[in-house]
Amino acid sequence: MERINRQVVLANRPHGPLDATTTEIRDVAVAPLEEGQALVAVRYLSIDATIRTWMDDAPGYLPPIGIGEMIRSGGAGEVIESRSDRYAVGDLVSGLTGWQEYVVADEGFGAMSPVPSGVDLPTAMNVLGSTGITAYIGLNDIGHISEGDVVVISAAAGATGMTAGQLAKAKGAALVVGIAGGPEKCALLVNEYGYDAAIDYKNESVTKRLKELCPSGVDLYFDNVGGEILNAVLANLAMNARIVLCGAVSGYNATEFPLGPSNYFALIIQRASMQGFLVLDHLAKWPEIQAELAAMIAAGTLKSREYIVEGIDHAVDGLSDLLTGKNIGKVLVKVS
Amino acid sequence: MERINRQVVLANRPHGPLDATTTEIRDVAVAPLEEGQALVAVRYLSIDATIRTWMDDAPGYLPPIGIGEMIRSGGAGEVIESRSDRYAVGDLVSGLTGWQEYVVADEGFGAMSPVPSGVDLPTAMNVLGSTGITAYIGLNDIGHISEGDVVVISAAAGATGMTAGQLAKAKGAALVVGIAGGPEKCALLVNEYGYDAAIDYKNESVTKRLKELCPSGVDLYFDNVGGEILNAVLANLAMNARIVLCGAVSGYNATEFPLGPSNYFALIIQRASMQGFLVLDHLAKWPEIQAELAAMIAAGTLKSREYIVEGIDHAVDGLSDLLTGKNIGKVLVKVS
Repeated sequence: MERINRQVVLANRPHGPLDATTTEIRDVAVAPLEEGQALVAVRYLSIDATIRTWMDDAPGYLPPIGIGEMIRSGGAGEVIESRSDRYAVGDLVSGLTGWQEYVVADEGFGAMSPVPSGVDLPTAMNVLGSTGITAYIGLNDIGHISEGDVVVISAAAGATGMTAGQLAKAKGAALVVGIAGGPEKCALLVNEYGYDAAIDYKNESVTKRLKELCPSGVDLYFDNVGGEILNAVLANLAMNARIVLCGAVSGYNATEFPLGPSNYFALIIQRASMQGFLVLDHLAKWPEIQAELAAMIAAGTLKSREYIVEGIDHAVDGLSDLLTGKNIGKVLVKVS
Repeated sequence: MERINRQVVLANRPHGPLDATTTEIRDVAVAPLEEGQALVAVRYLSIDATIRTWMDDAPGYLPPIGIGEMIRSGGAGEVIESRSDRYAVGDLVSGLTGWQEYVVADEGFGAMSPVPSGVDLPTAMNVLGSTGITAYIGLNDIGHISEGDVVVISAAAGATGMTAGQLAKAKGAALVVGIAGGPEKCALLVNEYGYDAAIDYKNESVTKRLKELCPSGVDLYFDNVGGEILNAVLANLAMNARIVLCGAVSGYNATEFPLGPSNYFALIIQRASMQGFLVLDHLAKWPEIQAELAAMIAAGTLKSREYIVEGIDHAVDGLSDLLTGKNIGKVLVKVS
């Protein structure tokens, strides 16, 4: 029996928001396995804002996705055939799957990693995956969080922000303020996810609310959005503040050259720093961080929340929801 | 005999460039000394771009200068009367003098420091003063310069830039590129002040020249200007680059809200950092740094160059020349 593999490829580079013409479906036959390979049935795709940056024909930390090429993506699935000692049928593995139903894992560059056990697959892909680890490394290794810090996190109801807020409280932050869009998200952050306060940027002045909530300024800002919110936080920094640049989702769908943070001069006045990072640079630390996060989940001090889109045909809708802020928590596409 | 002290006070907050209405002269009598005080005849004023920022009614690291208040400034002079054991007639001292002919030094907050000996007063105020120490701390403590770095310095023919370029070479930088305005400055940087290359931002494309001169990107950027030049360097960073924010002179005379660096997203892609600092935070290190710089001057490996404006009535012209880039080297006003 020949297996058919459904793939989602880039059809047109988006100019602004994603739409039905951005991707198209391609069905291809799955080739027989070679020695050292395993076939993985993809169960979930990890939908991350960074995928949007790869759709532009612009230099980045990875090359752009070519027209007609499969969308690059993380994901996780189950081994269903194996010709490798490394993989047994039934194993759950994660790695770069791409937007497709089947992926071939090998023992080289195409190797996939065991999914941490003890939690369900969506939780493992969220808090114990690159999302949760990004939050951890951003706060600790880049932001040097310390007890008593006033911490502000943007896109706070997104996957990274939700974990970052809970971790910041656990690390002893004096105040953790989330910035999110809409009253529903803001209420959830405070009631369920450990935030002390939330600013609804769609209905409140971020600058004014920051001044009220953080009268002595912001010590640590975990930035997922860039743009005007970054600029507002720059205007309200404490001395020796640290800005952790994790993403700039506000600009990813922009068609015009986005404005830079005109208040960056505050970095001099407040002797502050702004630092970018990528979680992939810190792979050696992942196992130890995963163990710490898994222990927090087991202890009930860290909650995981996912926003699941059904069906690979709707993968692009999941990405679109993420970029327009429709999601609460980690966006996953359930493939099968 | 009553001494008359000529002071320069802020008459009108400048809106854009400085002009004849910005400051005015005020002659006041010098009061008799009290116990613990000394009278200092000011010889030179240190003209720094930061003075311009204090003329705006905007929050900064120090409060704005009030209308009718003397212009705040560093300076140096000679003790001519003393009622303090700390000061002897004939001593050369430096500190916050303000723009005036006489200043009273005391033993508290108004204390002044001995000028390092062995060099002439202008050199002491330039390379051994806050200017040279700013270059040193920016490169070393903030920029973590290391051997083999590709270093770019803006306002390279200004006081800080001239010292920074020479120090970067001495610290083993592989390539030191200066950015300055006009062919005269650029030629001087390369021929006299140890720069490997110079970019004339008034006549060349900074972006294009940076790509040519630094094909593997910029490791350390010492930024004195901000604005479009900062943005151009952001587009040409090496991995793990450090941007040292020392000033943003391009914006100080701006009447419109300046543009922020829209390429700041490169900080994420290149895992780079941008950090502001103020030399006054590092006072404990000054003596050791001054000793190192003095040894370099004695050995002939560090040159000092000053741009001297004659007469306190022209102090505002000295500041204006600095802000419009007329100077080469450190701007000083010779008071008497």
